[in-house]
Amino acid sequence: MDDLHYTHRINQLNAEYARCIDDDRIEAWPDFFVAECLYKITTADNHARGREAGLVYADSRAMLQDRVAALREANIYERQRYRHLTGVPSLLSQSDGMVAVEVPFIVIRIMRDGTSEVFATGRYLDQVVEVTGQLRFRERIVVCDSHRFDTLVALPL
Amino acid sequence: MDDLHYTHRINQLNAEYARCIDDDRIEAWPDFFVAECLYKITTADNHARGREAGLVYADSRAMLQDRVAALREANIYERQRYRHLTGVPSLLSQSDGMVAVEVPFIVIRIMRDGTSEVFATGRYLDQVVEVTGQLRFRERIVVCDSHRFDTLVALPL
Amino acid sequence: MDDLHYTHRINQLNAEYARCIDDDRIEAWPDFFVAECLYKITTADNHARGREAGLVYADSRAMLQDRVAALREANIYERQRYRHLTGVPSLLSQSDGMVAVEVPFIVIRIMRDGTSEVFATGRYLDQVVEVTGQLRFRERIVVCDSHRFDTLVALPL
Repeated sequence: MDDLHYTHRINQLNAEYARCIDDDRIEAWPDFFVAECLYKITTADNHARGREAGLVYADSRAMLQDRVAALREANIYERQRYRHLTGVPSLLSQSDGMVAVEVPFIVIRIMRDGTSEVFATGRYLDQVVEVTGQLRFRERIVVCDSHRFDTLVALPL
Repeated sequence: MDDLHYTHRINQLNAEYARCIDDDRIEAWPDFFVAECLYKITTADNHARGREAGLVYADSRAMLQDRVAALREANIYERQRYRHLTGVPSLLSQSDGMVAVEVPFIVIRIMRDGTSEVFATGRYLDQVVEVTGQLRFRERIVVCDSHRFDTLVALPL
Repeated sequence: MDDLHYTHRINQLNAEYARCIDDDRIEAWPDFFVAECLYKITTADNHARGREAGLVYADSRAMLQDRVAALREANIYERQRYRHLTGVPSLLSQSDGMVAVEVPFIVIRIMRDGTSEVFATGRYLDQVVEVTGQLRFRERIVVCDSHRFDTLVALPL
């Protein structure tokens, strides 16, 4: 694996992922995952203690699609907007065609009244695979620095 | 176009652009644009509705130079400081030597009393050209996520 | 020096540096510096006026190790968490195997009660050298945009 080129591809993957959410095209969001995947939002404290449960937990792409449908029904996107910024990826290890990557993130939330705030910070712990020439998530664990969450955290991070 | 190298050049262009503003060297800011350019600050809502007008609108480098002169006269930089951070660029398309690029950004404003706040988030929608070996903006549309702006938004984003 | 590859290495250096602090492994933090180094936290105003003194000043790796020990004793990490994000590095110059680099940063602080805030923004002014195949800091001047600091700024930035 060429670190420089692979880092570039991971950057692009995360840029596309962020644009998908920030542009409110979340119907396309599950496509960043393989069919049998794991997506979880948890806190740094819980992650450090090895607790499996997350604030959000989905172990298939179908569950992610259900979540998107529920979000649309609840009309949550009418009330806010997100802006993701991801930092430099660290390539941690690789085996059997799967690459473990850590990426720090910050998400700003912009409410309908125009106010902005730091909504979440943390790091993505990813297992990335290549499927027909595209990088996809086998696993994305969203480890949030804070233990405090708005109930709206159901939105994808 | 080699994506990896071009992305690197776009990153450097944005880093220089940000340093120019954040270091308070705005007299050099118009030089990032070609003579016949478009610079516009607008909101995500207005942009999505196809509204042409912007909060700030300049269709030549000379207009940008006028703006800088006005800002200096108003002494606005005495009262605040900016810090830009740009994310990973997405190369959208290219034709006739012009490359369309989208780059997310976050700008923190630091006031003279020492307080910091998220001033603006959004994305740059750029048309980039090469002029005697340097990348320059033919067009930079600053699409802000929030519709609420301080009157000081006249400062370059 | 190949700018693209060197920028990649600088990105990785800063990512590792940030992870070391944000993961609360600060015992490893002094290892990012050479034995005879300079680490300083100052403000943009003081830096512009050429004032040598900093809010934090250490001119050897041993001093950084002392600082870490003091921080552990004060138990400061129990009360907060950091999240660093660094921007695109600008390679400024090189001579005698030392490369001058500027990197913008933003640090979010997450308190035990779950609140997050912009803690510091600014730029790193670095002198980077290569030691047995690894990039290390000969000098890291942390120039903060704001002059206002929490007393806890004793934590590494």
